[in-house]
Amino acid sequence: MDFAPSPRAADLIERTRRFLDGEITPLEDHYHRDVAALRDNGGDPWTPLPLIAELRAKARTAGLWNLFLPAAHAGDYAARFGTDGGAGLTNTDYAAIAELTGRSFLAPHVFNCNAPDSGNMEVLLQYGDQTQRDRWLEPLLDGSIRSAFAMTEPDVASSDATNMAATADIDGDEVVLNGRKWWTTGIGHPDCAVILFMGLTYPDAAKHQRHTMVLVPRDTTGVKVERMLPALGRYDEPFGHGEVSFTDVRVPASHIILGPGRAFEIAQGRLGPGRVHHCMRLIGLAEAALEATCQRSLDRTAFGKPLARLGGNRERIAKARIAIDSARLLVLHAAWKLDTVGAVGALSEISQIKAHVPSMAQDVIDFAMQMHGGAGVSDDLPLSAAWATARAIRLADGPDEVHLDMVSRVELGKYRASR
Amino acid sequence: MDFAPSPRAADLIERTRRFLDGEITPLEDHYHRDVAALRDNGGDPWTPLPLIAELRAKARTAGLWNLFLPAAHAGDYAARFGTDGGAGLTNTDYAAIAELTGRSFLAPHVFNCNAPDSGNMEVLLQYGDQTQRDRWLEPLLDGSIRSAFAMTEPDVASSDATNMAATADIDGDEVVLNGRKWWTTGIGHPDCAVILFMGLTYPDAAKHQRHTMVLVPRDTTGVKVERMLPALGRYDEPFGHGEVSFTDVRVPASHIILGPGRAFEIAQGRLGPGRVHHCMRLIGLAEAALEATCQRSLDRTAFGKPLARLGGNRERIAKARIAIDSARLLVLHAAWKLDTVGAVGALSEISQIKAHVPSMAQDVIDFAMQMHGGAGVSDDLPLSAAWATARAIRLADGPDEVHLDMVSRVELGKYRASR
Amino acid sequence: MDFAPSPRAADLIERTRRFLDGEITPLEDHYHRDVAALRDNGGDPWTPLPLIAELRAKARTAGLWNLFLPAAHAGDYAARFGTDGGAGLTNTDYAAIAELTGRSFLAPHVFNCNAPDSGNMEVLLQYGDQTQRDRWLEPLLDGSIRSAFAMTEPDVASSDATNMAATADIDGDEVVLNGRKWWTTGIGHPDCAVILFMGLTYPDAAKHQRHTMVLVPRDTTGVKVERMLPALGRYDEPFGHGEVSFTDVRVPASHIILGPGRAFEIAQGRLGPGRVHHCMRLIGLAEAALEATCQRSLDRTAFGKPLARLGGNRERIAKARIAIDSARLLVLHAAWKLDTVGAVGALSEISQIKAHVPSMAQDVIDFAMQMHGGAGVSDDLPLSAAWATARAIRLADGPDEVHLDMVSRVELGKYRASR
Amino acid sequence: MDFAPSPRAADLIERTRRFLDGEITPLEDHYHRDVAALRDNGGDPWTPLPLIAELRAKARTAGLWNLFLPAAHAGDYAARFGTDGGAGLTNTDYAAIAELTGRSFLAPHVFNCNAPDSGNMEVLLQYGDQTQRDRWLEPLLDGSIRSAFAMTEPDVASSDATNMAATADIDGDEVVLNGRKWWTTGIGHPDCAVILFMGLTYPDAAKHQRHTMVLVPRDTTGVKVERMLPALGRYDEPFGHGEVSFTDVRVPASHIILGPGRAFEIAQGRLGPGRVHHCMRLIGLAEAALEATCQRSLDRTAFGKPLARLGGNRERIAKARIAIDSARLLVLHAAWKLDTVGAVGALSEISQIKAHVPSMAQDVIDFAMQMHGGAGVSDDLPLSAAWATARAIRLADGPDEVHLDMVSRVELGKYRASR
Repeated sequence: MDFAPSPRAADLIERTRRFLDGEITPLEDHYHRDVAALRDNGGDPWTPLPLIAELRAKARTAGLWNLFLPAAHAGDYAARFGTDGGAGLTNTDYAAIAELTGRSFLAPHVFNCNAPDSGNMEVLLQYGDQTQRDRWLEPLLDGSIRSAFAMTEPDVASSDATNMAATADIDGDEVVLNGRKWWTTGIGHPDCAVILFMGLTYPDAAKHQRHTMVLVPRDTTGVKVERMLPALGRYDEPFGHGEVSFTDVRVPASHIILGPGRAFEIAQGRLGPGRVHHCMRLIGLAEAALEATCQRSLDRTAFGKPLARLGGNRERIAKARIAIDSARLLVLHAAWKLDTVGAVGALSEISQIKAHVPSMAQDVIDFAMQMHGGAGVSDDLPLSAAWATARAIRLADGPDEVHLDMVSRVELGKYRASR
Repeated sequence: MDFAPSPRAADLIERTRRFLDGEITPLEDHYHRDVAALRDNGGDPWTPLPLIAELRAKARTAGLWNLFLPAAHAGDYAARFGTDGGAGLTNTDYAAIAELTGRSFLAPHVFNCNAPDSGNMEVLLQYGDQTQRDRWLEPLLDGSIRSAFAMTEPDVASSDATNMAATADIDGDEVVLNGRKWWTTGIGHPDCAVILFMGLTYPDAAKHQRHTMVLVPRDTTGVKVERMLPALGRYDEPFGHGEVSFTDVRVPASHIILGPGRAFEIAQGRLGPGRVHHCMRLIGLAEAALEATCQRSLDRTAFGKPLARLGGNRERIAKARIAIDSARLLVLHAAWKLDTVGAVGALSEISQIKAHVPSMAQDVIDFAMQMHGGAGVSDDLPLSAAWATARAIRLADGPDEVHLDMVSRVELGKYRASR
Repeated sequence: MDFAPSPRAADLIERTRRFLDGEITPLEDHYHRDVAALRDNGGDPWTPLPLIAELRAKARTAGLWNLFLPAAHAGDYAARFGTDGGAGLTNTDYAAIAELTGRSFLAPHVFNCNAPDSGNMEVLLQYGDQTQRDRWLEPLLDGSIRSAFAMTEPDVASSDATNMAATADIDGDEVVLNGRKWWTTGIGHPDCAVILFMGLTYPDAAKHQRHTMVLVPRDTTGVKVERMLPALGRYDEPFGHGEVSFTDVRVPASHIILGPGRAFEIAQGRLGPGRVHHCMRLIGLAEAALEATCQRSLDRTAFGKPLARLGGNRERIAKARIAIDSARLLVLHAAWKLDTVGAVGALSEISQIKAHVPSMAQDVIDFAMQMHGGAGVSDDLPLSAAWATARAIRLADGPDEVHLDMVSRVELGKYRASR
Repeated sequence: MDFAPSPRAADLIERTRRFLDGEITPLEDHYHRDVAALRDNGGDPWTPLPLIAELRAKARTAGLWNLFLPAAHAGDYAARFGTDGGAGLTNTDYAAIAELTGRSFLAPHVFNCNAPDSGNMEVLLQYGDQTQRDRWLEPLLDGSIRSAFAMTEPDVASSDATNMAATADIDGDEVVLNGRKWWTTGIGHPDCAVILFMGLTYPDAAKHQRHTMVLVPRDTTGVKVERMLPALGRYDEPFGHGEVSFTDVRVPASHIILGPGRAFEIAQGRLGPGRVHHCMRLIGLAEAALEATCQRSLDRTAFGKPLARLGGNRERIAKARIAIDSARLLVLHAAWKLDTVGAVGALSEISQIKAHVPSMAQDVIDFAMQMHGGAGVSDDLPLSAAWATARAIRLADGPDEVHLDMVSRVELGKYRASR
């Protein structure tokens, strides 16, 4: 048993940290204030400020690009679009980097590792055919386009993904899409060029063989963004979350990934690493919130003492430290299981972290807001946005409750099997 | 011991409920959507839609106006501006009405019972002199102007109100104000005509005799709203929270309430009822969230069952019911103590509810959001705004921690006294 | 709405408090130490020390006897065996007295108000016929005999009382009992003369009409106490909890209460007040634990400061105060509902307190133990016994989970009804 | 990063598991019942049943003996008294074995790895001189004697160990001990031959240089066990916890370990591994409780369904799984820090686990008791004893609060350092 990162991971961690500290962090506050000013003054917050493109170019030059690319599936893409001309990373190695990028709202995008693009790229890498990869994966890896993921629907409980009612009907060599999706993340970005759409094809098939995953060019006739949705009062520009209607949207059947009825197979493969990434980024967010809280608790004085010496504040700092450290270990261990026994073997572990980490992060950030008083709930600090992120992820990719149920199913399965 | 409301309260509760159900609720969704559309399309969300004025007129005609007016201090104002030409209400009687108004974001304003105006009116009623009351209280009771409350400051830990550093210097028959306040609630409203300002006058006096409360006409030279502050991503238009600078602001010394150095005396009197109101409104908000959750849990189906039959949902509904009911009783009891033994006798009880109820409401609403899935965190439902309200009140009027400390001080005082 | 106790309750509260402070508390530590010494030295801890009989005589003389007797059903028993020759008390009035008696392990017995006797007396009062009342109720009220309650069974999940499998077969004018019960509380007392036994009579009847409640003289042939059970390591002498086998136990059919198949009807009537009593006694226990904790936190010094000034201790004291006060109000309100709308109308309220209060008390007492360090977990203080009491009651009379389910059923029922 | 145990650890884990399953578990219930019968029938529960000696002999033969011996300090003792004639284990490697032994109340003793003996042996190994090791360490490793640890005192807050007031006065070539200790664990065992005693020698020295650690033969004149103390109602025979008075107890100064005034130095070295052991054993206890709960939840039926399908039970199982797994990782990581950077470098990590794990175990076991109903709080299952163990350890070796404070001190120190 060894808790030290591999030499390669250690090197990338160090370089990522330096890039964050040197290039991103000094600009981040400024950036958010500029976007806010734009928004308040009737400007368009959906167009990324030029700064982002500059940072992305620097990151790529620094070899910090597409780090999420999984060693297991990266093939020569890692050499062509990844870091140091080398292979992709294991989930375990990438995890610590994902934590670092999660400390910043800009960093995931700067490193071309942001959701939903990284997840969509993994789908194409693992399940796309050569044509699909040439057309969509390469520009995504290159950073010249963005993508969106359209699964959740307003009219059904999407926690149960087999509920999805939007249709993907095979019509000769075409597939016809109809229905309404919402929380289609990434659709707001001006560079969004393709949507991964999940639709019902075989309503009478076995439960997990009914749905089809289709690549839909953003500009296909019949695709309409009805509105952008605020999540907890925030639009999360420039990616955003859209409510999107699909009306007789026709694309060639060759746009189907893996084959009709195989969407769940894809979702299962996609979600393991994606959940590790989400959770590690949230741990970075919680860690940053705790750091700010420690600073604040030493700097701010009330009732004649620094906050650190008032009431239960020190105990809460200690509990936050314990919560973050144990959650980080849980995610690293899940990543290691994913690397060593695969997504099916890590089923419980992945659900454990998804059920546990966002809620842990929400609590730590809530405490951080409280310690920062009025500033904590303002937009002068990133805390309230961080809180909203953690809170929203408790619903995204399956609500906590669904993951807890999965964990208990695996747990009880151990005993059922032996009867 | 009798838990039934008084006949007068029962009558007003029933009439308030009918007004809410008949007049306000059917329009509320529509109203928020109109404001959002205005905001998204570059309109001015700070000008209240005409609907509000119409509802206020109806409420006044219906005798549901200024219900907060306290029996103990209302004098003839209750007869002139209150309900049914009669006396004000006890805190206990008003509490149930405040709960009802709290279910709606519009209702407190419609009934002229919203913060910070109701608190400011109570200050004028109890501590203002006749001139002050004629000039400011009457139009506030009449609803023709609005007011703001300027206490919190960005540069000091305002949880300890004796920290307030903005100055109120007596200069002959004038008082000169300097400093920077934020979270000045109500300043965004176009009808805001007066600010209650708390400033440091005698830095060397005893801790609670240093500060002065001054009535500042909104348009006085030197008063500048530097910016409006979003609380958890929301501006809470049309009242809003401002960061306001005061630069050599001069007003006649006759604008001082009660006398120089007596701000804390006023704050103590003001805060008891205000905290009861806040807490009762939050209980209304939590109750409405639970009702929506129950409906949802019966209507929405996942994994082949209504949500009410999945996992721990029913237990969470039960726990929310217990949390709300016990919190309501705690607030009613605190109101009764305020009525029977006064603010000093109810010191612990008032701090208990302020420390407990917002956090309880936050938890119940968080659960309600979770049960509503994507809709819960969108703005299609009032839940995420409700959550932000409860969360922000955990800091307003003293953070939870300060109130817990007060409760423990009273508690331990019982034993210290007998030594 | 009025939170003050009625004059009669106020008088009894005051007298009970004086009796506790003057007669019971000074002897209590001594008593427990004597019993422990007896136990450790091979003596018989099941025979009550003579002190108890003396205190009971004094309490009766002081008019503090059978205070639990409910106004609604007491008839002339209150005059003959109760307080002041007067009527019984309402549940609301009695509640505050039950809280006081709960502060002491001896007091409920001293006042002849202890479980399971008080509940059994209520059953006889409300459902027993004249013969049954003459034979059993009178000596119970007189305090000359004790009783036990035999419902729970080792072989079935007794949380679902319809599971009870022990049989009560009608055989002509006799009823024949077979089966095994455990947690038969009260069976260890040397004066225990009668057992209330619940058995299955009509296995094919509707679910709540299958079981019969039978009065079984303790010395009937076939009744065998197999062993006494420790609850969380304690035998709770001299009452105790027994595992009792019933083998062809024959009693006259006239020993059936209310009639065959009507046990659930009785249980429902019995349990409302019983749960109020349990909860109020636990509130007394939690209150006493908090008082001890406050004293300790001022008296004990570590790291150069009294415990009250270390870490989060003051916040925990405040939260314990809030938890106790809100729980007390919840129980008082449930008692008031029981008084004003009856057991069926108070169904949710009774389940709310049963699900909430024991767990609240467990937490407060756990905190008190922690604050008392090694002494807290020793038997030198009553804290660890108090903890065991609260913990065990989370299972007795239906586990928390069953009560939460009942609360949610009532809650959701409001919405189902209107569809 | 690699979460797999080393080959040597894997082998020992497997052998330990087999020994537990094959030799200990089948006898354990029987053993506890025999002891209880002995106790209830006036026998002496302090004399270990012969079974223990037999199991110890078997364990030693199987090479599962003194596994706790630390690689860093074991010297040739590992070869002579340890496993496989080889070196000691790292803390990380031993941790998984400690978890396994913690599942059983007998196993730690059977493997000669139980508290306080293992900690006392480590002290002698690391700080004892050759004479001390020859006289005490060898028979302890051999298992022919037992030891006790006397630190905590009834009259001072022992959470602050600098409070210890019992004295160890140097008088020529003797040291004279006076004072009263309690919670002296191990003193009840008939083989207990030596007590590690901590006493005040230099009251005016620097805070951590005042106390001395002395080896006191159990039969020295002036050592008196005043009484054995029940912890949460249990005496924990045959080791037990004693209140021990020391009256003019004289031993040669050569019985001082490391030198006068150096007790804290020793305590610091001793406590790191000891806390890892405690925590890992508790994780084993929690794991066993969860396993029993899963079995129960499938086997037991209420309301027509297995418990696993009722209410929030499955969610609680999932949360327990997450709590145990993340806590285990936290302890393993702390052990690894201890191995790689030593006790001082692992200060925060050791305090984190001590503050977190016992409380986690208490909660999981509490849930397990609840799921087992009446059986859960009886002594028919080991759950209530397990609960008492976890609860008591929240106070032993420093209460939770002291450890949380240490964690926060390290945490805030990071920021203080850079100022």
